Amino acid sequence: MGLLLHSIKIQPVRWMVRRAYSGKSDVTANAMVFADYGQPSQVLKWHSYRLPALTADTVHVKFLASPINPADVNMIQGVYPIKPKFQKLGDESDELLAVGGNEGVAEVVAVGDDVSSLKVGDQVVMAKSGYGTWRTHAAGPASDFQLLPKANNVSLIQKATISVNPCTAYRMLKDFVDLKQGDYVIQNGGNSAVGQAVIQIAKAWGLNTINVVRNRPQIDQLTQELKDLGATHVVTDDKLGSHDMRKQIKSWVGSQSPLLGLNCVGGKSATEMARYIGANGHYVTYGAMSKSPLSLPASLLIFKNIHFHGFWVSKWSDVHSKEERYAMFEDIIQLMSQGKLKEPKWNQVEWDEETMKRSVEQGISGFATGKQVVLF
Amino acid sequence: MGLLLHSIKIQPVRWMVRRAYSGKSDVTANAMVFADYGQPSQVLKWHSYRLPALTADTVHVKFLASPINPADVNMIQGVYPIKPKFQKLGDESDELLAVGGNEGVAEVVAVGDDVSSLKVGDQVVMAKSGYGTWRTHAAGPASDFQLLPKANNVSLIQKATISVNPCTAYRMLKDFVDLKQGDYVIQNGGNSAVGQAVIQIAKAWGLNTINVVRNRPQIDQLTQELKDLGATHVVTDDKLGSHDMRKQIKSWVGSQSPLLGLNCVGGKSATEMARYIGANGHYVTYGAMSKSPLSLPASLLIFKNIHFHGFWVSKWSDVHSKEERYAMFEDIIQLMSQGKLKEPKWNQVEWDEETMKRSVEQGISGFATGKQVVLF
Repeated sequence: MGLLLHSIKIQPVRWMVRRAYSGKSDVTANAMVFADYGQPSQVLKWHSYRLPALTADTVHVKFLASPINPADVNMIQGVYPIKPKFQKLGDESDELLAVGGNEGVAEVVAVGDDVSSLKVGDQVVMAKSGYGTWRTHAAGPASDFQLLPKANNVSLIQKATISVNPCTAYRMLKDFVDLKQGDYVIQNGGNSAVGQAVIQIAKAWGLNTINVVRNRPQIDQLTQELKDLGATHVVTDDKLGSHDMRKQIKSWVGSQSPLLGLNCVGGKSATEMARYIGANGHYVTYGAMSKSPLSLPASLLIFKNIHFHGFWVSKWSDVHSKEERYAMFEDIIQLMSQGKLKEPKWNQVEWDEETMKRSVEQGISGFATGKQVVLF
Repeated sequence: MGLLLHSIKIQPVRWMVRRAYSGKSDVTANAMVFADYGQPSQVLKWHSYRLPALTADTVHVKFLASPINPADVNMIQGVYPIKPKFQKLGDESDELLAVGGNEGVAEVVAVGDDVSSLKVGDQVVMAKSGYGTWRTHAAGPASDFQLLPKANNVSLIQKATISVNPCTAYRMLKDFVDLKQGDYVIQNGGNSAVGQAVIQIAKAWGLNTINVVRNRPQIDQLTQELKDLGATHVVTDDKLGSHDMRKQIKSWVGSQSPLLGLNCVGGKSATEMARYIGANGHYVTYGAMSKSPLSLPASLLIFKNIHFHGFWVSKWSDVHSKEERYAMFEDIIQLMSQGKLKEPKWNQVEWDEETMKRSVEQGISGFATGKQVVLF
């Protein structure tokens, strides 16, 4: 837990690239797969298969680390808007299988002769969501993968979890409002993985954050932790609607009300938070932890002219070029390398069938207990 | 009611401009004013006063026609975000008074020597909301007024009611989505004054409209009336959530789901309507007739990437130049002149204290019974 992964030496893989491109490679891939949608503990299973041989226009990658995210569970349940690809994996079975997992970091271990965009030793993330990252190896066109910039002092855990949370935080801070140094951002779920990334990126960019968290017994400790990360202010959701809180926040922001709000909670406190957004501001929803809709008084829309958007990083990657995504990774990895965006809390998940099934089920309860990560 | 006002000859006003610019003119202005916020029937009163004399940089206008809008009532009640200006009107009393009314058309009857932007005979609307249009005359800088383009076949009623409803419809159709011929727009309150303007402007621009109205006994008659105005389809709010309606609308729009939704209702049916907006579409709220907030499932924001905005024409006028507003009036007046944007249903309100008080109170129940208009 919290182990510094960048200090672990990954053994170089000795790979016999057979340039004849015969039908099968000599690599056995293991994967956590499912043939039907359902509860992870019931539908997930271990699948071993021979990796297809390298061809001129494909690459082979070896996975290094892959997290378990809440969206992975939704995808297995069949309730996620992105559907995985069910396909034959190896010649051992004709069953159509989807590989679980959406996020992870892999190393390129073999490259076909016609591939110029990747080389052996490159580290990559997936080009799109739904690719399937709970597996030891994968073979496919270079376009399935996105090159990560090289950097020192960035752990495998940071790379394995870069695609979703830090990118979500980065884009939301950058794409909706042209924020200037000293501007305020208000967010709820301040303690979530995205919330913590928002705090740190905002701090690095000279922005102030007001972070709403659920009240709890150890609120002082949590407040201190978030301030240590760079939070300007931490407030609790139960007080958002109070006169005292309005005065308090007013005293912090003066006439410069936050023009950007970030919401992953929904429900009543999300509406209360919206009331702190200044006229013509933007309010971005990227989650609904309360499972309640966002209720908007018409006055916030009509008279305060607040714009309400959603953000989904998978869609962002779908509609933007690899070059744009690479530029974002450069910025984020630089922040990581400078120690400004820290490794998230995490727990190692053993790579075996029973542990994976149990851990994925636990993933349903979300990110509060630290990110679960498989190290292959 | 429905009388063609442009056939009425307005008597030219014989005005003695006293170029000496002495302190008082010889014109007695009458106005419906209020000194305190409250119920219109209790706080509105008749006020007669001598108009200030013309000065080099002011103009005098004579009001021709002014409607009673729901927002006027809210302003008198003190619950509207724009507050009227309380000021001394004439030398007869030191009481600070606000003139009621926000919309209307006036004719310029005298122009100071240094004023170049207006001339006698010009017809104008107010530059800003909150000016006070329930009065026979006004004196002030030319910047208080906005020149209307000249046009044939446009009635006084159309000019008196141009600033709010047609402009709201025009801007919402133009500013949020780059719509192309044949595109669909979906709106509720299809029978409201703005709704009817949306139907007609959309039709003139080659756009299709799906118009949601409340179900009612004479629904077939209303449907026919809206189709006569140019509505492509009319549906009732109680069926919006049904499977049949989803199939029906799908059969109309095919893969071209509406990318623009216009909402003046709020509540459950407004949420149902939002589900018909296509991915990346925009949904604009400009009213809340149901007095219920707009409830947004997170999936509409996150996965469908629908953007939710508000629109308020008063704010639009505040932040845009007179030139931009004039260009809009040119377009709208041309549509009116061509018979493509018809005079709204209206009732004449007599210009006397008791009738005004009664009519303004009736204005609380809104626009369903036809626009109430004072002819001075």
